[in-house]
Amino acid sequence: MQYPNKINKTYERQKVSHANRGMKLESLLNLTNDYYREINKAIIYKKPTPIKIVKTEISNKGIKISDAYFEAPSTLDYNGLYKGKYIDFDAKETKEVTRFPLQNIHEHQLLHMKKVLEHGGITFLIISINDLIYYLDGNDIINYIENNKTKKSISYSFIEENGYVIKQKINPRIDYLEIIDKLYFKE
Amino acid sequence: MQYPNKINKTYERQKVSHANRGMKLESLLNLTNDYYREINKAIIYKKPTPIKIVKTEISNKGIKISDAYFEAPSTLDYNGLYKGKYIDFDAKETKEVTRFPLQNIHEHQLLHMKKVLEHGGITFLIISINDLIYYLDGNDIINYIENNKTKKSISYSFIEENGYVIKQKINPRIDYLEIIDKLYFKE
Repeated sequence: MQYPNKINKTYERQKVSHANRGMKLESLLNLTNDYYREINKAIIYKKPTPIKIVKTEISNKGIKISDAYFEAPSTLDYNGLYKGKYIDFDAKETKEVTRFPLQNIHEHQLLHMKKVLEHGGITFLIISINDLIYYLDGNDIINYIENNKTKKSISYSFIEENGYVIKQKINPRIDYLEIIDKLYFKE
Repeated sequence: MQYPNKINKTYERQKVSHANRGMKLESLLNLTNDYYREINKAIIYKKPTPIKIVKTEISNKGIKISDAYFEAPSTLDYNGLYKGKYIDFDAKETKEVTRFPLQNIHEHQLLHMKKVLEHGGITFLIISINDLIYYLDGNDIINYIENNKTKKSISYSFIEENGYVIKQKINPRIDYLEIIDKLYFKE
């Protein structure tokens, strides 16, 4: 009789820890971007979450939104400017260990990445998988998807081979611009 | 006895018409950006309004935000990518006829414009004044402010001299990229 409870508990713990990890990656990236702006290295922000406002009221604290819903973003979450280049990316996490499910990226987000590449910008995903944080370049993502049209996920081996592990530091926490320097600003 | 009413009515009509004009400039710019994306000329979006969420509840339509407030944005409202260049701007309106009051631009927004220029991006304001829509380049705005530190507004004559009137068309409605082409991509 003890096993099912134990399993449930473990499952719940995993869920919670995954949610925390989700918070953590976003928080770490916010700290990273704050740091980049502080040292005047890059100007990159997370976009606010799009919200559909249904109802507002006047309260003593100003205009109060009393009925609203989250909307799906049509672009990626982060964008900005680095060394004269347009930067556009998103952070994604998965509990999976052998693959990154493509349902994590909306189709319009993939289309957006394609357009960014087409117009001369830099786009990528920061993927948290197997307790590692990877930089996976937009060119690799688009190529993979176009060459594997029936697949519903990117295999972990592809990420290992084509991605770059971002080492966590004290400051900046997730130094993704180090990878961009290597890939796009190599002397 | 009729005059005060008449004056009030006119004043109210002005207020309403100004609010409409406010809605209109944003709507026209959204249509413009939609069009630019449609013809694959540029990828420029308005950022969602930042909102401080205080309380959410579960409803039959999903997560309902039941208590939230608008926050002041730390950047400009629109950004994106055009011909490999980072674009960052805001739309501002004034009822004033001889000046554009600087209280329309937050200090952190001015600082943001300065940083964008420093890092090789293009930044500007689209200003609706005297029934005309002007493009005023970030370089001119920063220069004006640094050379007129005590002034609380940009004079209309400065806007007339240094700005560019954007002609309204059917499509795109407010073709600001035409000005950018002239200023930044002149052959």
